[in-house]
Amino acid sequence: MILPSYLQDAWWTPDDASGATTVHDASTGEAVASVSARGADLAAALAHARTVGQASLGPLTFHQRAMLLKQFALALGERKEELYELSRHSGSTLRDSLSDIDGGIGVLFTYSSKARRELPNAQVYLDGPVEPLSKDGSFLGRHVYTRLPGAAVQINAFNFPTWGALEKFAPAFLAGMPSVIKPATPTAYVAEAWVRILVDTGLLPPGSLQLVSGSVPDLLDHLELGDIVGFTGSASTADRLRRHDNVQSGRVRFTSETDSINASVLGPDATAGTPEFDAYIKQLMVELTTKAGQKCTAIRRAIVPADAVADVIGALKAKIDERVVVGDPHAESVTMGPVVSRAQRDEVLRQVEVLRDAGGELLLGSTDAPEVVRADGTVGRADQGAFLSPMVIGFADATTPAAHEIEAFGPVATVLPYRTVAEAADLVTRGGGSLVTSVATHDDDVALELMSRIGAYNGRVLFLNRDNARTSTGHGSPVPHLVHGGPGRAGGGEELGGIRAVLHHMQRTAVQGSPETLTALTGVWHTGAASAAGGRHPFRKALSELRIGDQVASASRTVTLDDIETFARFTGDTFYAHMDEASAAANPFFPGRVAHGYLLVSWAAGLFVDPEPGPVLANYGLENLRFVTPVSPGDEIRVVLTAKQITPRETDDYGEVRWDAVIRNQDDELVASYDVLTLVAKTDDHRTDAGAVREEVAAR
Amino acid sequence: MILPSYLQDAWWTPDDASGATTVHDASTGEAVASVSARGADLAAALAHARTVGQASLGPLTFHQRAMLLKQFALALGERKEELYELSRHSGSTLRDSLSDIDGGIGVLFTYSSKARRELPNAQVYLDGPVEPLSKDGSFLGRHVYTRLPGAAVQINAFNFPTWGALEKFAPAFLAGMPSVIKPATPTAYVAEAWVRILVDTGLLPPGSLQLVSGSVPDLLDHLELGDIVGFTGSASTADRLRRHDNVQSGRVRFTSETDSINASVLGPDATAGTPEFDAYIKQLMVELTTKAGQKCTAIRRAIVPADAVADVIGALKAKIDERVVVGDPHAESVTMGPVVSRAQRDEVLRQVEVLRDAGGELLLGSTDAPEVVRADGTVGRADQGAFLSPMVIGFADATTPAAHEIEAFGPVATVLPYRTVAEAADLVTRGGGSLVTSVATHDDDVALELMSRIGAYNGRVLFLNRDNARTSTGHGSPVPHLVHGGPGRAGGGEELGGIRAVLHHMQRTAVQGSPETLTALTGVWHTGAASAAGGRHPFRKALSELRIGDQVASASRTVTLDDIETFARFTGDTFYAHMDEASAAANPFFPGRVAHGYLLVSWAAGLFVDPEPGPVLANYGLENLRFVTPVSPGDEIRVVLTAKQITPRETDDYGEVRWDAVIRNQDDELVASYDVLTLVAKTDDHRTDAGAVREEVAAR
Repeated sequence: MILPSYLQDAWWTPDDASGATTVHDASTGEAVASVSARGADLAAALAHARTVGQASLGPLTFHQRAMLLKQFALALGERKEELYELSRHSGSTLRDSLSDIDGGIGVLFTYSSKARRELPNAQVYLDGPVEPLSKDGSFLGRHVYTRLPGAAVQINAFNFPTWGALEKFAPAFLAGMPSVIKPATPTAYVAEAWVRILVDTGLLPPGSLQLVSGSVPDLLDHLELGDIVGFTGSASTADRLRRHDNVQSGRVRFTSETDSINASVLGPDATAGTPEFDAYIKQLMVELTTKAGQKCTAIRRAIVPADAVADVIGALKAKIDERVVVGDPHAESVTMGPVVSRAQRDEVLRQVEVLRDAGGELLLGSTDAPEVVRADGTVGRADQGAFLSPMVIGFADATTPAAHEIEAFGPVATVLPYRTVAEAADLVTRGGGSLVTSVATHDDDVALELMSRIGAYNGRVLFLNRDNARTSTGHGSPVPHLVHGGPGRAGGGEELGGIRAVLHHMQRTAVQGSPETLTALTGVWHTGAASAAGGRHPFRKALSELRIGDQVASASRTVTLDDIETFARFTGDTFYAHMDEASAAANPFFPGRVAHGYLLVSWAAGLFVDPEPGPVLANYGLENLRFVTPVSPGDEIRVVLTAKQITPRETDDYGEVRWDAVIRNQDDELVASYDVLTLVAKTDDHRTDAGAVREEVAAR
Repeated sequence: MILPSYLQDAWWTPDDASGATTVHDASTGEAVASVSARGADLAAALAHARTVGQASLGPLTFHQRAMLLKQFALALGERKEELYELSRHSGSTLRDSLSDIDGGIGVLFTYSSKARRELPNAQVYLDGPVEPLSKDGSFLGRHVYTRLPGAAVQINAFNFPTWGALEKFAPAFLAGMPSVIKPATPTAYVAEAWVRILVDTGLLPPGSLQLVSGSVPDLLDHLELGDIVGFTGSASTADRLRRHDNVQSGRVRFTSETDSINASVLGPDATAGTPEFDAYIKQLMVELTTKAGQKCTAIRRAIVPADAVADVIGALKAKIDERVVVGDPHAESVTMGPVVSRAQRDEVLRQVEVLRDAGGELLLGSTDAPEVVRADGTVGRADQGAFLSPMVIGFADATTPAAHEIEAFGPVATVLPYRTVAEAADLVTRGGGSLVTSVATHDDDVALELMSRIGAYNGRVLFLNRDNARTSTGHGSPVPHLVHGGPGRAGGGEELGGIRAVLHHMQRTAVQGSPETLTALTGVWHTGAASAAGGRHPFRKALSELRIGDQVASASRTVTLDDIETFARFTGDTFYAHMDEASAAANPFFPGRVAHGYLLVSWAAGLFVDPEPGPVLANYGLENLRFVTPVSPGDEIRVVLTAKQITPRETDDYGEVRWDAVIRNQDDELVASYDVLTLVAKTDDHRTDAGAVREEVAAR
């Protein structure tokens, strides 16, 4: 049977198998699946995404979408054994599956949680502060992100059928863009399996996820302004796609993440015997053998001090001998599987030959078929499978172009000697732009020099030392918190990086208008917009009643010298600006003794608070406090507090309310401005589960 | 004489005039300049930028570069009459020059000021907060921007030889990237003039600015990874440049800002007689005639309610008759000059014919040569110059493709009728991506519906109403605070937007490492890095002595119920969580009565302060305050204060110090964390000019 696609909210298979590709088990060569999307109506699928998908995702808030991502993660977690089992056919060991499958689930969890913490519970995102564009405050500017109105087409690589797809799907989904996923044929059956788990939850909003199981040569022809393409794969395919008229013209946003010739530098201080040397060797072994080296982020170039090459090779050989067992991932002892296919194995061996022809010397491993452990535990020469042994190739001349240009996408790395840190940096940059470079050093001067020279050539730089050798997430592991992607050869794209990846799926628009209009467009109150003062105190309103613009304007209160002294005695804050007239007057900022800033905000709370029990549960923080005009004895202060932003929680019976607080003096001069952050119950019945709440708050 | 180029810090002209282009006065047809860069050694110029330019700009901090920009702005301001005079030859009236020349100077001032307020006084920029990547805090992630190591090549359009160049130069310069500027031939003599003024200041860091006065067909061939191209001009040229291998491959970052078919919508509520209608008509007149309509941001499509078309045309005609005088800008009465050249005039007339052939009806103006005012004040039919009259073309069928695709880059706009707001939005999006759309409405529901439908198709959206009609900076004026550029047809690029444009010239790299390493790389103290406590109190250290990591750890202080009540009485803050045991205990966040958050931070100040006069001048604010664990009567608190970031001012004898403040209780639980913002003198002699300082602080 042909592997189904999931199109327009239904499973679909081609009518006949003509032209279908058979995918084989990487270890045994047995047929695993037949892959074809011939006859799939891609135009209809994209139209479905743009209409039904946009209509079902669009009305959801960021937090609502985030809650769904969490459900998807839980569903995948419950059935992950199925995915492990399927992945073994592609050569993945359990450790490999931890990065692909558990890694993918982790991306969903992280995005679900980050979205609820870092995005508003709304559909638009504000970037940066208000920009006042007129003196009187009647004309403001603000950057607003709205979601792209089209489909997010995601073209994935074979090596991470789960993680690689989910790290694109999660941010697109959060942004409110429907995804159309095109997995790579060699592991399309794994992608089909996780999509099926998501479909089975019954929670996928209609049109929000479609899967095209098979090759679709004319995919880009169907795209239009408002669509986005996220591509992961080879630099040459990326180049071909980027030349498509729809991308060229700027109509379709295109990001790519391609394999790059990543480097790992052993610092001059990290000599054999240091913790950094050990961490470096261990990392080199891990990157060489995880996914049999089939990672865009794997270390291709080990850049090491010339006098340390022998130590590195010796230690790496010992580590490989100790840890690496090549074979069928169905056998428990196996720690490194085959590459994905015989074709891939042949390709790797071809690139190894190119490296050797360019002067490379095979220092570790062999191009012969290795001894392998079969599924039944027996050992023998590999015959059917796509097995390779880990290989390390040394270059006497580290500037040999092939070492910086040729990628053998398998368990292969080069070792390149350097003499000075500047030379090591130069070698790194010869890669022409990398996803990641790691550096093992305990000398932060070395770190600083390298960073200043290689930063602009890398999407990510990892500094490994004794302090983090055990806690590091590793050279080859993109984390959802940090941007993944790099300049130049690495594709010039960016993915992940927390909320940044969500914003890749949105358009940033500079909006200009009156405070009133900006308030209406953003759902956030802007100074100068209408406010409702004088009615019921806003602290008496639950979220269900509270509106942005609800305001309390306090009475005035006069600050006396006695107040200042009382406060100084009570708090212990006897800073001279409050206590010593002569010294205070000599200070460039103060006319003489002035009130403590903390006195002013404490009094302001006393002026605006409504003390009786009610929906306002707690003041959990304060932001952007600026003291502008000092307050002298005899001055009066008053405060205006306005509800600025309301963020109900999806999972709790309360939410956050951000209040705009402005303190002025008797001459209407600005004394201080800040945001007060409170938790407010959704309804007047504000009792809630104290334990759960406290946990949630502590997690901030 | 051939217009000189400024290359490798010297003026240069070609040896002979073969192949030079003669540029003519747009009004009189007289020769103004001869333009050629034939024989210019572009490879050497780029190499000069990458070596000498990078070496001279790189070591400067953002603030130091910003101070230079201010000097450049002052120098241009002093000699702007020279630029006005030259610009008249290109057809620019004084009003046109205000947007090009004063606008360009304004960009320098704004960038100088924004950089000093919003960037650290350092060479790298941190994007977003720390991302903890391990539970024990030993492995952190952070996004760091470092400048691109190459040259910033800026290809400018003819219409804004000053502003258009400076809006690219200023952010590149701030980022630390040397610029190589290629002006458009028709106004290259204006660019040469302002570059000469900058060179004459003697303040340009070597290699930081080069000018290529003339066409350089092979420009992109010479570029490499680390260079960036900023292009402004036609969509077709942008398309050609984008196809260059160096751009295709991702080696060279390319941003483009192209002319687009911008729209302006008259809201259904904005009927004749409303302030919004008047504002709309005035804006339409201004956009039609400023720079004789030669603006990438000009209104090309006036989208108006079907029943308002006649009113709009009538009012616009009256406004044009009242305000517009076409002629040689040397004549004082002239309010609209010619387009830049006869070739440009012929091109505009050609596009007008295309629009008419597609069904457009010329409702206002004529394709005949208009009556014009000559330099000497006489009036007559235009003969030599490139004059046009303002033209408005109506379409009965608003969906006519030509109306959304054809740009007549002159004083030409179409009028397109709509029936519903959804239809108006659909018409806007048919432009295929615009730099800007403006909307005149006093109905924020209309604003909201339009924004949700057109946001993703526009780089900027301006909402005009009675509140901001007088203060609006206008549909056609990009402001340095807001992003300029738009999706699709508009080029897909982004410029300006304050610091965002500086970051376009830098590479964002995700850095992973220990707190110690991140501190060393960023110059900002990270929790977990080494700190120096126990020595001299850090409040006793001037900036010259203070180091990040300098720390004071306070003694403990016990909070009693009496303290809470005293504080409540003193401040008036009698919120029940502090005063009423039963109600407080019923609150989900509190075990019973707790101390005020403001009490805790006030006490913390008392605990960490060193009260005697010294280099610490003032606490000017506080950020990111979060209350985590409530404090009950009987609990003890203590505070640790650590110098986190030090930002000396270039122009004052003090600077900002940001302190990391952490309050913990007797069980070492986190009670609160925040940043304390202070002003600290550079030296122990901390007297300074009180007035100037206060003004500066008030401006924040």
